[in-house]
Amino acid sequence: MASASVKALDQPVLDVATGVYRVVSTTMKVQSDGREELYNLSESVRDFVKSSGVRNGTVMVSSLHTTCAIFINEWQDALVHDMKTYLAQAFNKDMYYRHNDPAWSDCDRHNADSHLRSLMLGMNLNLQVADGDVVLGEWQSIIMAELDGPRERTIRLQAMGI
Amino acid sequence: MASASVKALDQPVLDVATGVYRVVSTTMKVQSDGREELYNLSESVRDFVKSSGVRNGTVMVSSLHTTCAIFINEWQDALVHDMKTYLAQAFNKDMYYRHNDPAWSDCDRHNADSHLRSLMLGMNLNLQVADGDVVLGEWQSIIMAELDGPRERTIRLQAMGI
Amino acid sequence: MASASVKALDQPVLDVATGVYRVVSTTMKVQSDGREELYNLSESVRDFVKSSGVRNGTVMVSSLHTTCAIFINEWQDALVHDMKTYLAQAFNKDMYYRHNDPAWSDCDRHNADSHLRSLMLGMNLNLQVADGDVVLGEWQSIIMAELDGPRERTIRLQAMGI
Repeated sequence: MASASVKALDQPVLDVATGVYRVVSTTMKVQSDGREELYNLSESVRDFVKSSGVRNGTVMVSSLHTTCAIFINEWQDALVHDMKTYLAQAFNKDMYYRHNDPAWSDCDRHNADSHLRSLMLGMNLNLQVADGDVVLGEWQSIIMAELDGPRERTIRLQAMGI
Repeated sequence: MASASVKALDQPVLDVATGVYRVVSTTMKVQSDGREELYNLSESVRDFVKSSGVRNGTVMVSSLHTTCAIFINEWQDALVHDMKTYLAQAFNKDMYYRHNDPAWSDCDRHNADSHLRSLMLGMNLNLQVADGDVVLGEWQSIIMAELDGPRERTIRLQAMGI
Repeated sequence: MASASVKALDQPVLDVATGVYRVVSTTMKVQSDGREELYNLSESVRDFVKSSGVRNGTVMVSSLHTTCAIFINEWQDALVHDMKTYLAQAFNKDMYYRHNDPAWSDCDRHNADSHLRSLMLGMNLNLQVADGDVVLGEWQSIIMAELDGPRERTIRLQAMGI
């Protein structure tokens, strides 16, 4: 039943780790090659976490842009196509937007739709780190959505923990 | 006025805590009982945080799936119904998707709509912990959305701090 | 190509910091002046982080409400107008909702649309802190969306790290 609360942890075993807290960061560049394109960052983020020395904690994957999103989903060609189609249909590029109108805006990229897509998708992803690796489910990939390319994008990675 | 910035903190009093950083984690299982259903995880997450020994820091609630979302909202039967109705209407199950087409995809769950819902809702929630408890507003509950059940889902909880 | 993974970090230089972990928190109040309005919290969050003494880590900006969202985007009058227009159109205020129906709900605010907007926008933002300041791209601002005002809203800020 929808309104039933989940009452108990099935696995109340707790893993506990303590130690000296460290923060390790880097930036990576992604050169996009289309106005709207998806990129799989999983391998890069995993390599970074492994090299960071953080064994337990979190890793944050942050787009430093307002038309470039970061999220989790399955990395399958057919689904990547569906996600791009959905984003194109749900956020109409050709509607009137003040941001695209020289009378209201000094931005000449005509990218109001790109801003709205990133608004709803989010630009910061925070993931758990355990045993020196990013905690991802079997079908989860870390995906960057270029929403107003092609451009060189900056993604900041930060691993934190012990 | 919309474009006015919020300039000053009304309560500039800072609470400061220091100590030995710890990371405590566990996994919980949720057996869902419908294709689309919401579950209130607040009590389980609160119990976990209390047992973790973390008094100040954060707790992360992560779905390890790509068709199962985690978010905050009010837990009221009428609103739960409205959220489910909104998600069903905003993401059309019966449209053509390559992910559902055997010519393009080896997935036979016909769950492209479930992927799109979780894409927009998010699968990782990071919350503040203070005084040994999750910081939640009066009306806030931690909600898991099963978007392609029924299945047994794995949620990983990690409390971090001092 | 969409399905190509991003393979290598272009800048594998890692910045590493260690030290005594601290958690610093405060609450700020925002008095909203319309049913739907956006507020730029960047300056307040930056001031808080600078006063927290946290040089490397994260800052979390959390709305303690279910009809008040927090996100990142560009702060430009024309775009603020477009974001408000998008939110008004994508989530129909005048549809039938059980949450607005006295037969199903004891809430008399008729704000089901506000709940749905915050559901999709999110209420918790976690950002990187480096060199004692919030890591934000050139065009990124931290924005609070009042979705059912006017009201006094409570935002909890927590800086964590070293």
